[in-house]
Amino acid sequence: MILLTRKADFSAAHFYRVDAWSDEENVRAFGRCANRNGHGHNYTLEVTVAGEVDPVSGFVVDLKALKEIMNREVVSIYDHRHLNLEVPEFKSTVPTTENIAIAVWKRLEGKVPGAKLHRVRVYEMPDLFADYMGGA
Amino acid sequence: MILLTRKADFSAAHFYRVDAWSDEENVRAFGRCANRNGHGHNYTLEVTVAGEVDPVSGFVVDLKALKEIMNREVVSIYDHRHLNLEVPEFKSTVPTTENIAIAVWKRLEGKVPGAKLHRVRVYEMPDLFADYMGGA
Amino acid sequence: MILLTRKADFSAAHFYRVDAWSDEENVRAFGRCANRNGHGHNYTLEVTVAGEVDPVSGFVVDLKALKEIMNREVVSIYDHRHLNLEVPEFKSTVPTTENIAIAVWKRLEGKVPGAKLHRVRVYEMPDLFADYMGGA
Amino acid sequence: MILLTRKADFSAAHFYRVDAWSDEENVRAFGRCANRNGHGHNYTLEVTVAGEVDPVSGFVVDLKALKEIMNREVVSIYDHRHLNLEVPEFKSTVPTTENIAIAVWKRLEGKVPGAKLHRVRVYEMPDLFADYMGGA
Amino acid sequence: MILLTRKADFSAAHFYRVDAWSDEENVRAFGRCANRNGHGHNYTLEVTVAGEVDPVSGFVVDLKALKEIMNREVVSIYDHRHLNLEVPEFKSTVPTTENIAIAVWKRLEGKVPGAKLHRVRVYEMPDLFADYMGGA
Amino acid sequence: MILLTRKADFSAAHFYRVDAWSDEENVRAFGRCANRNGHGHNYTLEVTVAGEVDPVSGFVVDLKALKEIMNREVVSIYDHRHLNLEVPEFKSTVPTTENIAIAVWKRLEGKVPGAKLHRVRVYEMPDLFADYMGGA
Repeated sequence: MILLTRKADFSAAHFYRVDAWSDEENVRAFGRCANRNGHGHNYTLEVTVAGEVDPVSGFVVDLKALKEIMNREVVSIYDHRHLNLEVPEFKSTVPTTENIAIAVWKRLEGKVPGAKLHRVRVYEMPDLFADYMGGA
Repeated sequence: MILLTRKADFSAAHFYRVDAWSDEENVRAFGRCANRNGHGHNYTLEVTVAGEVDPVSGFVVDLKALKEIMNREVVSIYDHRHLNLEVPEFKSTVPTTENIAIAVWKRLEGKVPGAKLHRVRVYEMPDLFADYMGGA
Repeated sequence: MILLTRKADFSAAHFYRVDAWSDEENVRAFGRCANRNGHGHNYTLEVTVAGEVDPVSGFVVDLKALKEIMNREVVSIYDHRHLNLEVPEFKSTVPTTENIAIAVWKRLEGKVPGAKLHRVRVYEMPDLFADYMGGA
Repeated sequence: MILLTRKADFSAAHFYRVDAWSDEENVRAFGRCANRNGHGHNYTLEVTVAGEVDPVSGFVVDLKALKEIMNREVVSIYDHRHLNLEVPEFKSTVPTTENIAIAVWKRLEGKVPGAKLHRVRVYEMPDLFADYMGGA
Repeated sequence: MILLTRKADFSAAHFYRVDAWSDEENVRAFGRCANRNGHGHNYTLEVTVAGEVDPVSGFVVDLKALKEIMNREVVSIYDHRHLNLEVPEFKSTVPTTENIAIAVWKRLEGKVPGAKLHRVRVYEMPDLFADYMGGA
Repeated sequence: MILLTRKADFSAAHFYRVDAWSDEENVRAFGRCANRNGHGHNYTLEVTVAGEVDPVSGFVVDLKALKEIMNREVVSIYDHRHLNLEVPEFKSTVPTTENIAIAVWKRLEGKVPGAKLHRVRVYEMPDLFADYMGGA
């Protein structure tokens, strides 16, 4: 078994807010991230798939196919968008780095032909990232 | 003469829109950046000052002072903000990388004690940046 | 379960020396690192915690709290210090990258509220790093 | 147990071609990589070893020895070479990132004194890498 | 006046050889780069243009147009190619980093609408790059 | 004319202290850098030379020669050393980033055959660097 990882980038706006909380509670929990005008990031996404290397092609996964899936399922939907306002899964879920990693997993799981989704890593900034490897 | 450069980061949301233009014209000129919900970036700011090295301290500029000025004049105002909605100079000016570099220059010029502002570089993403060295 | 990783930097001096060995033996084992005047590095620390995502806040760990713990327990003690001369755990232990990772683990273990310390990674240079995930 | 990782770089040319396939099939599978004149990359190799920290030296592995092994077994053979034409294992195997990671593993396994080879990571480009942790 | 810089990447093979020299002379001058099977690199190209900021759009240059010109004139011709064998200007000129920078300049000069080509920087590796700012 | 830049790294310890000042004055000016036990950094050095491209070799400077000069004149003397205690020019001059850049210039000036030293850049950390382009 071998792991193959491909990166992609997207730029998006977001803010952190729990509607059931008061403004004060939101600021206490989320600091400057609670600003409802939003701020933004250059996110970096790392998608890792696991599988056997095809003895003929030498590929664990067709790289062009993987790139297209990542673009179609995630990048085209998140890039240059306001995550809270325009991406369905963040209408009622706070778009933290952790939740974005889980959401990307759900968008990609079962869609990579011939390989198993192994890990989704999301960098919000170069010094902060979340890893999700599936539930259970 | 020597140049000293210090970097800082800020995360902000923005969009590109000229109010005098129709929606179609804005999309034609700005593509996905015209989305009025905004998107965002991790900006990197490089501030370069020029001066003589103090023969005793070995400094061209007090590093702590430079950092404080950059924080007070720029980072604390831009970071975790929506540039179009919350930063005065971008209420009527499109917050392109070029215009952000010029705005940072105006905010810093004349405020660095003992050294001359030489260049402001703003990275919107790792593969796109603008340099401004002051007017004629 | 999800992993969240936060980075921090510190700059420190160190040297490698085993007092029970002769100068020749130290140089043979440690090369230029045996120089007792010391040399130094910009270390990068990556702290990974594991836990469940809070369904309301979307956090596995309070980011501000994690940053404060890393600063209080490690960065404020190691940064701008000579590890051999000023940090207790390296008075009698060689401050190799491996031993620094273990020492950081011991300093942080049990101190991150609501999440489990999962891994400590220490980069001595961009091309050399150690990972410690706790004892057996 | 602790993990220690050391990086190295090599620059090489390669192309992707399965001799049993027609030109059209090769282009369909490999796109621009099928160009038999070759293209090239700055590869980055990360070799991770696992072991116990020596209580005296503080090392899991002698760093100079590890560097020499990586140079002798891999870098001196791959660097500034055309992988398909000059490296034996790629005469009949497509030099994909996956296959390079496996080949590096085979070249290094059992040769690091006092530590166990844990993982080989090969970056073909900053946004594409493969990890191999051994068979079975 | 302001400068705007955009980066792009291409992967290519090359070798260094002066046909008028003997094999020994080529090896003496170029070392491992003289290997005629070729080796390769991930090149990074930085194109800097200079101009006035348009007071309405905030752009010194249309970013989409600049990207298309860089792709059409350089990246589509150099990427996944063997520079010596497939790119006309390197049939009789050694594709050193210096000569690649000059060749990119010639390919781009006069083609960026509304702005002046200011500098071409080519990285052969992260630790080696050439800058060309035009002749005379 | 073209510019060619080559990078090199060295790891060193240093502290900031003016002997004519009291301890309080040193701490006020230099903060944590005044700690006389020293701390350290991974410095990155960028040496830029200017010249004409040789029409036959395609080189502005012999790369192997440039690397050897940088190693012999700077890296071998600064690397794994305590700058204040072991490098002559910093016995009486504070080893700030500015002063290191000037010292490297003096060590290299006139020693690069066939090209002119154009700029020395020294990074103390990724977010702080000094540029020196010679006196007068």
